[in-house]
Amino acid sequence: MGVKPHPGFFVMQRLMDIMASSHTSFMDVLEASRTRRGGFFRNLTLATMADGPDVRTIILRAITADGLVMFTDKRSPKYDQLQHDHRAAIHAYDPHAKLQVRGYGQCMLKVGEQIPPNYLHDAMKRPEDYASISKPGSMLVTEASVEMNKDDAPNNLAVILFRPHLWDVLELHVEGHRRFAWGLESGEWVGSWRTP
Amino acid sequence: MGVKPHPGFFVMQRLMDIMASSHTSFMDVLEASRTRRGGFFRNLTLATMADGPDVRTIILRAITADGLVMFTDKRSPKYDQLQHDHRAAIHAYDPHAKLQVRGYGQCMLKVGEQIPPNYLHDAMKRPEDYASISKPGSMLVTEASVEMNKDDAPNNLAVILFRPHLWDVLELHVEGHRRFAWGLESGEWVGSWRTP
Repeated sequence: MGVKPHPGFFVMQRLMDIMASSHTSFMDVLEASRTRRGGFFRNLTLATMADGPDVRTIILRAITADGLVMFTDKRSPKYDQLQHDHRAAIHAYDPHAKLQVRGYGQCMLKVGEQIPPNYLHDAMKRPEDYASISKPGSMLVTEASVEMNKDDAPNNLAVILFRPHLWDVLELHVEGHRRFAWGLESGEWVGSWRTP
Repeated sequence: MGVKPHPGFFVMQRLMDIMASSHTSFMDVLEASRTRRGGFFRNLTLATMADGPDVRTIILRAITADGLVMFTDKRSPKYDQLQHDHRAAIHAYDPHAKLQVRGYGQCMLKVGEQIPPNYLHDAMKRPEDYASISKPGSMLVTEASVEMNKDDAPNNLAVILFRPHLWDVLELHVEGHRRFAWGLESGEWVGSWRTP
């Protein structure tokens, strides 16, 4: 427990065993899978509560002590949904390791001056993602009619901060599937094996 | 409209344009992406309503006129969640075409004698997926204690039939993102371009 794996061992040892060894090792694997090219934790699927569930791919921008950082347009359905109900689930699947990682938690939303300058700076590398004149998802008259106003982009940016209280890892394996959970109990992360 | 693309054109034409050309073409692309090796529609992410949203990877077994077919263990959280609330969303992302497909709809559940024999036969190629003695997700005393009773597998099988009323396709592209929706209106599928 608590022994930090050397990155060189990642191919030698099953990812699942590293992720179950300590919560710190678990988070190290997530961060490595976020920053590595082609890593399975670069993009997440974010599920929210709407009229029924809603779900979409989103880029994971950072993992911090405050939570997992994602960007969106504050006029998007997901921002609206998270304002009404903070509960969310995130999901990622690594087809190579046959590993599914899920997190359950709540989302904090930040807009305008609440947004740290480094996040604003990162997001404004692609202002066109936050600059459509019409609200994301709204109907267009023709295919080519997306009008932009890049000056509005900083004002349309919202930062989503996902704070998990439960993680669930499922490993599919020919010798038998395995499931492991990390749950936050009175401020401590407690791990347990589960029926897969 | 309604012109069925020859599979040989898939690499010549952008997938998004085929999917927007007619609802039949759209469903043809989904079926081709389900059956093709490495296709992006073989596995889906299924989102459901629990205490907050829940989400997991699931194998898409068939696309029929009745809906999209998936298998599960009837003791699993997703079965329980869908029994309480039929609403669901499905999600798939093709990292090569940078294409996200989402479907919104309701799930029908079938167990025991309601399950068509061909689905039962398919599922029982891997009875161990429905044969754990303890309920999926329940806590285990140790890592190696998953006990099986394969005789119970047919009885634990449930078929999920997802019936969509709305599809949303998002294409990420350097020349500008595009979004297209297919919505069921009085029994007819109506397509429209949306703000991406």
